[in-house]
Amino acid sequence: MTQKHDNLARFHAIIPAGGIGSRLWPLSRASAPKFLHDLTGSGQTLLQDTWDRIVPLTGSSGITVVTGQSHRKAVVEQLEALPQQHLLLEPSPKDSTAAIALAAAVLFLENPDVIIGSFAADHVIHEDDKFRSAVRKAIEIAASGRIVTIGVNPTEPSTAFGYIKKGKKLEEFGFGYEVKKFVEKPKINTARKFVLTGNYFWNAGMFIAPAKLLLEVLSRTQPRLHAEIMQLAQKNISGDFDAEAVDIWNGLEKVAIDYSIAEPAAAEGLVAVVPADFEWHDVGDFASIAELQANGRPGNLAVLGEGRVLSDSSSGILVNDTGRLIALIGVEDIIVVDTPDALLVTTKAHAQKVKGLVESLKANGQDSLL
Amino acid sequence: MTQKHDNLARFHAIIPAGGIGSRLWPLSRASAPKFLHDLTGSGQTLLQDTWDRIVPLTGSSGITVVTGQSHRKAVVEQLEALPQQHLLLEPSPKDSTAAIALAAAVLFLENPDVIIGSFAADHVIHEDDKFRSAVRKAIEIAASGRIVTIGVNPTEPSTAFGYIKKGKKLEEFGFGYEVKKFVEKPKINTARKFVLTGNYFWNAGMFIAPAKLLLEVLSRTQPRLHAEIMQLAQKNISGDFDAEAVDIWNGLEKVAIDYSIAEPAAAEGLVAVVPADFEWHDVGDFASIAELQANGRPGNLAVLGEGRVLSDSSSGILVNDTGRLIALIGVEDIIVVDTPDALLVTTKAHAQKVKGLVESLKANGQDSLL
Repeated sequence: MTQKHDNLARFHAIIPAGGIGSRLWPLSRASAPKFLHDLTGSGQTLLQDTWDRIVPLTGSSGITVVTGQSHRKAVVEQLEALPQQHLLLEPSPKDSTAAIALAAAVLFLENPDVIIGSFAADHVIHEDDKFRSAVRKAIEIAASGRIVTIGVNPTEPSTAFGYIKKGKKLEEFGFGYEVKKFVEKPKINTARKFVLTGNYFWNAGMFIAPAKLLLEVLSRTQPRLHAEIMQLAQKNISGDFDAEAVDIWNGLEKVAIDYSIAEPAAAEGLVAVVPADFEWHDVGDFASIAELQANGRPGNLAVLGEGRVLSDSSSGILVNDTGRLIALIGVEDIIVVDTPDALLVTTKAHAQKVKGLVESLKANGQDSLL
Repeated sequence: MTQKHDNLARFHAIIPAGGIGSRLWPLSRASAPKFLHDLTGSGQTLLQDTWDRIVPLTGSSGITVVTGQSHRKAVVEQLEALPQQHLLLEPSPKDSTAAIALAAAVLFLENPDVIIGSFAADHVIHEDDKFRSAVRKAIEIAASGRIVTIGVNPTEPSTAFGYIKKGKKLEEFGFGYEVKKFVEKPKINTARKFVLTGNYFWNAGMFIAPAKLLLEVLSRTQPRLHAEIMQLAQKNISGDFDAEAVDIWNGLEKVAIDYSIAEPAAAEGLVAVVPADFEWHDVGDFASIAELQANGRPGNLAVLGEGRVLSDSSSGILVNDTGRLIALIGVEDIIVVDTPDALLVTTKAHAQKVKGLVESLKANGQDSLL
């Protein structure tokens, strides 16, 4: 037990809160991305749900949030217990490696033994106890010098997620597996094969590892990015995140942590996976929110928001962000998102196309609506 | 020619502007029914279109409008040329017999030879010349002592309209037919038979007749209603439409003119029909507006209103009454009606159900939205 407690004491969580969530337009905006919304009807935002899920493991001094400067106010309001020094603000979006590595480097400079865990701010997990149990197992394995991911058992051959191929069981722990490789989002036939073999998990983007190990891998795969991140971390700690630091940040290479760390580390045999025995949802688009909401009450339209609704629909989702009366008659699998300056009407089958719509708004210079 | 001119000089048009148009909710409201809207994209309202269609026959002193007291202001604003004494205000809605008979009685008391023609304020006719030509023919026949209706050649076996069965041709005029009977809205199989025989017209609710004859028929079928109407007409003319008059009005029997006059008169052999060789639209629901709009540009979504629209839909109708950006993705035959306090999303197939929705709003006491 002592060993376990020591390992947990080394643990510090990182919540990268980024991404516009353009497939959730017009609810999710550049100024109010999806993690700042209550998309589950829980009464609080996805970011607050994420905080509440982690804080029993870490205490409120053990979580660092990395987000864009424009979200500082909203994040501070939503996470009252977040210590000011644990809010890292990105001058511009530079993808997941920069965000997570900067936090890991800051934490490493403060405590070289720190084990960090990175958990996206916009995922939905209802079984928080099982989540924390999986994270505890991941911390134990991480303490042995591995990068540990939490793998989600696929419930369908989704092409929306990357996959993790598991290897041998980790006999010394009695749980967890070696990771043979990460596989990028597959085509449907490949996804079907993956699910049938039982050897693949969905990659939910959760990583638990000693910060030292993460940074070592990064120093080998992206030496320049590593050096710049270490320099920025130093400036952050010394309270000297000045104009020069902003320039350095803005020049960082944009690369996903899957490419810079996870895949190369797996090739070196450094990665393990702990299976998640909890339900996990990405809520990447309105169709997935509709399905998530419908779990609790099938045969109903999912409704988010406070306004009056008259509907005979038994499927789909209605987001009422204006408080107007909204009447739906005879529309199934419908998606209606009503916001003060924009209205979206589409269907679950077309939910993924919302991203393209946002891109065309951007191309037309309609930035006020993004 | 002299005879024709004399007959036309006897002619006075009545525009009953009533009905809430609840199948066009939330665009059409009790406070702003459909005849006060531009539903065709003509740039003016249906009421103004109706006025412009008739005024070349009558001049601006030859049209009387009957409408609800709450629409007085809007009607006066929209019809600047309407003489004040030709605007009759209903204290409460009492169906078409009361509205048309009151106007007919007022006109009869002023000129016992008057031939009146009644034309709804919310119908759509684009070929105004052909309309006026049909009305001129109807006036000629009416002058011979008949009630004349203008029958629309059915383009499909609609169950939304009543039908008129024609009899023998009126040889003395060289145009027009006797009317054997009026038939209420039929079931689809009956409607199909009607259309196949070629002996039936749609009843578009247009009546042209000597006011004297109309009132005589009414005195036989509804003697009490007739007496009350004559009393009210007298009070109206003497500028004495007082509280007692309002009480009398509010006690009038509600009956459609089809039952009180048209059908009984047809049974007496008093009715004739002039075929309309123009297109006629009832715009009873959003599906019919969508079809009307699509005539000019098939394969497109019909759009009413000024707001920005992003859509890949090739059918249906979008009414943008808020000026917001509205985005439609992958929805066909859709109906979206966006107003400041209410939003409707349905499909063309369900357009008729909007009326039931309005009734349920009424039943729930949500009068502010009606």
